[in-house]
Amino acid sequence: MVQEEIRRRNLGALLRHVHLDGSLSRAALAERMGLNRSTIMALTAELTAAGSVREEVPTDTGRAGRPSLVVRPESTRVYVLAFDVAVDWLVAARVGLGGVVLDRRWAARPRAGADLDRVVEVLAGFGRQLHDAAPPGSVCAGVGASYCGMIRPGDGMVRFGPDMGWVDQAFGAELGHRLGLGLPVPVGNEAHLGAVAEHQRGAGVGFQNLIYLHGDVGVGGGIIVGGKLLDGEGGYGCELGHMVVNPYAGRPCGCGSHGCLEAEVGERALLDAAGRPADLIGRDALRAVVGDADRGDVSAQDALHRIGDWLGIGVANLINLFNPGVVIFGGMLRDVYPGAAEPVRARIARHVLPVAKERVRLRTSALGDDATLVGAAELGFSRLLADPLGVLAGAETRDGRRRRAGGRRVTRPVAGRPGPPA
Amino acid sequence: MVQEEIRRRNLGALLRHVHLDGSLSRAALAERMGLNRSTIMALTAELTAAGSVREEVPTDTGRAGRPSLVVRPESTRVYVLAFDVAVDWLVAARVGLGGVVLDRRWAARPRAGADLDRVVEVLAGFGRQLHDAAPPGSVCAGVGASYCGMIRPGDGMVRFGPDMGWVDQAFGAELGHRLGLGLPVPVGNEAHLGAVAEHQRGAGVGFQNLIYLHGDVGVGGGIIVGGKLLDGEGGYGCELGHMVVNPYAGRPCGCGSHGCLEAEVGERALLDAAGRPADLIGRDALRAVVGDADRGDVSAQDALHRIGDWLGIGVANLINLFNPGVVIFGGMLRDVYPGAAEPVRARIARHVLPVAKERVRLRTSALGDDATLVGAAELGFSRLLADPLGVLAGAETRDGRRRRAGGRRVTRPVAGRPGPPA
Repeated sequence: MVQEEIRRRNLGALLRHVHLDGSLSRAALAERMGLNRSTIMALTAELTAAGSVREEVPTDTGRAGRPSLVVRPESTRVYVLAFDVAVDWLVAARVGLGGVVLDRRWAARPRAGADLDRVVEVLAGFGRQLHDAAPPGSVCAGVGASYCGMIRPGDGMVRFGPDMGWVDQAFGAELGHRLGLGLPVPVGNEAHLGAVAEHQRGAGVGFQNLIYLHGDVGVGGGIIVGGKLLDGEGGYGCELGHMVVNPYAGRPCGCGSHGCLEAEVGERALLDAAGRPADLIGRDALRAVVGDADRGDVSAQDALHRIGDWLGIGVANLINLFNPGVVIFGGMLRDVYPGAAEPVRARIARHVLPVAKERVRLRTSALGDDATLVGAAELGFSRLLADPLGVLAGAETRDGRRRRAGGRRVTRPVAGRPGPPA
Repeated sequence: MVQEEIRRRNLGALLRHVHLDGSLSRAALAERMGLNRSTIMALTAELTAAGSVREEVPTDTGRAGRPSLVVRPESTRVYVLAFDVAVDWLVAARVGLGGVVLDRRWAARPRAGADLDRVVEVLAGFGRQLHDAAPPGSVCAGVGASYCGMIRPGDGMVRFGPDMGWVDQAFGAELGHRLGLGLPVPVGNEAHLGAVAEHQRGAGVGFQNLIYLHGDVGVGGGIIVGGKLLDGEGGYGCELGHMVVNPYAGRPCGCGSHGCLEAEVGERALLDAAGRPADLIGRDALRAVVGDADRGDVSAQDALHRIGDWLGIGVANLINLFNPGVVIFGGMLRDVYPGAAEPVRARIARHVLPVAKERVRLRTSALGDDATLVGAAELGFSRLLADPLGVLAGAETRDGRRRRAGGRRVTRPVAGRPGPPA
């Protein structure tokens, strides 16, 4: 029993290393996991038989002599479905083991009035299309979703989705039901998932303490403390966008308060600062300001500086609180940050205590608009990485068969599911 | 080897439970540690033989029948020396296993100009007195110190001690050297240690996510995230006192900036708000304002409200960021908070997002001015709790003998150490 548990953990840990690194030699795996090479060989053999990894000669080692084999994830064979409900779009993707986006569907989303039913209908439709388009023999190992609001951990309930007016909507359960794959749909806040994705695969690799600021209409946050996402008592931490930075002359915020960081640096604040008309919204409008600033338009540059000054106060506060190794600007802040970096740095120089300033780096998101989607995929992979053989044995292949650990397949018709295409 | 490591961990874990709870039955220990009762019995026997715990009949069980034995820490026999360098005082104490303050020495400290040499001289003198006054046969198992500044983890180096003007002073090493006990002196920031103490033994017991605000001249912070102190990349996190809350009309702060939380709610801010003369400083002056407010003095009440309003902005920001179970007001904020609670609550109601507000509690420190000292003692106990028998076997008893695990003593004169009193 204990032996079985250790084996399961080791299989999960090995698969996680391969999933995150893309390609590792047995020797590297042995070193990272603190296990001997014969154990690594046995674990790799089991994962290979289950169809989740393969061993192959590396393409170019740059060294003479017989190269040692590397273990790679079976990215096109084992995948998850990942969903992203952002302020301006809905995305669904098939993401392969190793974090590779294999296929995607996209739709623009109107900013207000989308009810749960409509959003889930679009996403479930995309999900079925992606599933049906997967190659025969491939396996859907999980599902994960990102949502631009506050999510109750555990059951994918949207507690508060300000821009759609959602309160206590069972998004994860409903999407799982409509997908009909018999898989749970864990849901995470978009900025939390973006932080996890940047930490694992983006601008935050190698840092145990990082702050990710995700701009869309407002500003969300994901904060990694000691290698783990800060969730707090109920999973509702990281709300850095509602840090009050301008208490007495602050702009009104969507949350009902005034002077929140997102009210001072969000999309509307920037467009107003740049003198754009009040009915102009969206990412393109924002990129136009950034483009104008790049071309030397002084009023656009001033607008970015004004935003940067408030952003800098918020970031300085966060550095004093978290002493992070890196601060990452994602979402629309990825576009805004380069033109706002000067006042941000000035505020850090002015407000951050000397020793906390020593090592912090400021970076833009490496994954861009895919950060939240990739983070959602990680949610979907978490079951697989906890118990690779168990999940693969229970998973349905694209052609309606069930795999069994060990690679043998048994044909077992699944009642009530759409059959394989002719 | 592995077996030995497991035994050491189990001994440490059992001793930690007894240390934190004060008294636990074998049955309770078995349940908490997930071990069977015969293993608990064997571990308890080893710790008893080493002189760190004893088993006894509970004083009053309130139940009929033969009561089961409880395991208690040998608080008067096994102790640490704990030191606290606060803004207004120096304290040293002998703190027994279980967190009991057995004996203490205290000195007022002038606010400025104290150099390392003078501070260490006073503390080391106190330490020797406390050590000499300990009963024969008792064992000093460690040393720990609290300091009102930024500390480099690992070596007790004060990186930045603003009120004394210390920069890169080797406080821990120097104190260890002067004590001459052959023991390392780990040092922690006062608010970090206060947070740990309140989490383990005070107003934060049972919460995995808490914020501790420690007021003295300024405001320090200790933040527990997922049961662990937030330290960040270099150990310099939690600096909530330098969160900018009033960026454009803020009071000057000791850090060189303006509008920091501690500039708006610290001692000087309160005394100024209450119209006290500029040369009046210290805890007594502050308590006089609180006392006046209690007696109905409207200007003192207004001063507390004004401070409370800024404090509330800071606390609201922290709740949005950390989603804590409890916020604890310690140090001078323990005195200030009751008269400032109303505006603090109003700011929370106004700025904190609905779901994060649901469960948070606001409390004053349960340990009061001892919080930092008790936290320093925990630093001192950490070696013992990592390897109880190893540390006790190596420790010198009060009468200059060395203990050996198993309770037998061998007389072994220790060169270069002061001998036992006649």
